[in-house]
Amino acid sequence: MGTDQGPETIIKALSLAHKKHPDIEFHLFGPSDVIKRELSSYLTSFTNTCILHDAPEFITNDEVISKAIRRKNTSMRLALQAVADGQVDGIVSGGNTGAYMALATILLKTIPGVTRPAIATTFPTAVGKCILLDMGANIECSPKQLVEFAIMGKTFSRDLLNIDSPKIGVLNIGREDLKGKPELHEAHQKLKNLPDVVNYMGFVEGNDIPLGKADVVVTDGFTGNVTIKTAEGIGSAIAQVFKEKMQSNLLFKILKFFSSRKNSGLGDHFNPVKYNGAMFLGLKSLAIKSHGGASAKGFANAIEVAYKLNQYDFSHQIERDLIASKSQLS
Amino acid sequence: MGTDQGPETIIKALSLAHKKHPDIEFHLFGPSDVIKRELSSYLTSFTNTCILHDAPEFITNDEVISKAIRRKNTSMRLALQAVADGQVDGIVSGGNTGAYMALATILLKTIPGVTRPAIATTFPTAVGKCILLDMGANIECSPKQLVEFAIMGKTFSRDLLNIDSPKIGVLNIGREDLKGKPELHEAHQKLKNLPDVVNYMGFVEGNDIPLGKADVVVTDGFTGNVTIKTAEGIGSAIAQVFKEKMQSNLLFKILKFFSSRKNSGLGDHFNPVKYNGAMFLGLKSLAIKSHGGASAKGFANAIEVAYKLNQYDFSHQIERDLIASKSQLS
Repeated sequence: MGTDQGPETIIKALSLAHKKHPDIEFHLFGPSDVIKRELSSYLTSFTNTCILHDAPEFITNDEVISKAIRRKNTSMRLALQAVADGQVDGIVSGGNTGAYMALATILLKTIPGVTRPAIATTFPTAVGKCILLDMGANIECSPKQLVEFAIMGKTFSRDLLNIDSPKIGVLNIGREDLKGKPELHEAHQKLKNLPDVVNYMGFVEGNDIPLGKADVVVTDGFTGNVTIKTAEGIGSAIAQVFKEKMQSNLLFKILKFFSSRKNSGLGDHFNPVKYNGAMFLGLKSLAIKSHGGASAKGFANAIEVAYKLNQYDFSHQIERDLIASKSQLS
Repeated sequence: MGTDQGPETIIKALSLAHKKHPDIEFHLFGPSDVIKRELSSYLTSFTNTCILHDAPEFITNDEVISKAIRRKNTSMRLALQAVADGQVDGIVSGGNTGAYMALATILLKTIPGVTRPAIATTFPTAVGKCILLDMGANIECSPKQLVEFAIMGKTFSRDLLNIDSPKIGVLNIGREDLKGKPELHEAHQKLKNLPDVVNYMGFVEGNDIPLGKADVVVTDGFTGNVTIKTAEGIGSAIAQVFKEKMQSNLLFKILKFFSSRKNSGLGDHFNPVKYNGAMFLGLKSLAIKSHGGASAKGFANAIEVAYKLNQYDFSHQIERDLIASKSQLS
């Protein structure tokens, strides 16, 4: 039940997801009494799909990770253990990213050949969607990790967005070979030498992402996190400015026109809520990260991502590609 | 005449700037014959304000910086020398950022107490504008540099945007003290201890920038560069999607309505062209960096920034604040 918004937001999100997918069985890890109270105002057709697992302890956002992951009865750890035990198919959490990543890595295990998992998400572009990783799991990354991200991103893009041979770019502050950081130069050279494994297009810049120049954009977790949050902020700022500018009747009519046509409006196309629900790529099981500050609709989208991803199994393809890259690079 | 777009774009930009400010005297450093040919199609009222300085050599974008800055007759070096000699009041260039920064630092000199200059630019927000720095001059930054950025950003924001006590934030991937990189934690602690020098609000995240939560956002040059370019890309992507969606007559009318009201439209508010023209903060003289790929209108805006900034003199205020911060931190 990890989120900054409290259990009522999550319960509301589950009820939204239930409406769309009545076949989902929800296992809720958190304080049973609070959850029960929240559920009491919902219909039994929904609450019957909720199975409660009492976990009064939880990990806070400012907790030291090394300490947080040692606690045995936190909702996050118990939920991850249920995935590891095969009791549930996957987990969605909006809790402390560092602790979540550390615990998921320990309990769910990484795919052989993966140094550390990465957080991947979809980013809406002018021409469709692109996969961006890492979004914050690995603050600094080695060239080897960036190559792994490229391979995992490729599989994610192909299997989820049905892109045959996704174009992979490494995020940098210029397209020239000498721009940016040393670890990027090394990853750039390695990826150039893997034509059979990835369709590598070279360095890309920030403006290339929203324009959809690449299908997969590889970066360290610090840069990726700032990038996606800036994009979200722009989405919110535009909505705010748009609202303020809606003074005249004509503009108001237009906005209503936009919002009344599902998925056709400009605001909707770049709506941050649409891309809530990031995946921990590189783990043997399904773990989805929601933003801690996501609304019920946002959290429901993260559940939707989990539902869709549960139909795939990337692990083996990623493993095969990692083996192929290793033999080609050595 | 440094830009990716060739001299015709710059000449067009100068002619636009001339229309607004007929008092500007333009000193053009580049291949005289090419510039003369370009100027021949313009009215003498404009061309009479252009003074040519022949510099056939230029620095390319993929040139090794250490080599580029040793060449004595490049247009960039000659133009900077003219600033250093007091022949002109300032310089605007869209050339190789690394070489420009290195040469500007050598020839124009830094303000005492400044480790290295930073590139600062304005970022449009939902509520106004914020100053973002560094935009790409310093790929990795020490805590001391980040503190200097905060002080320089404060002066820039106050003197240029008339904000009395600008709220300063350090860009991170979370607001908690333990989030992000060690150099950010150290800068965070130092800034907390400078209440008389800066109005420090703590860590800010990517989404806080477009929402206008801070007046000055401090970050390393890699993150800053990716952030501003992503924002520009979103601006372009929105324009592209908007154009595609303009199928119906009603929407077309609305767009025309937006664009006909100066500064009132949504597209205009977040128009990337509006914030072309970044400043090298921390130098003793005025040096403006334009994007290499800027249009004539964009380059004209960079000239506009130079024109405005020429009315101020930050150097002494920055120097005073740096001295104050040093005594308070020691």
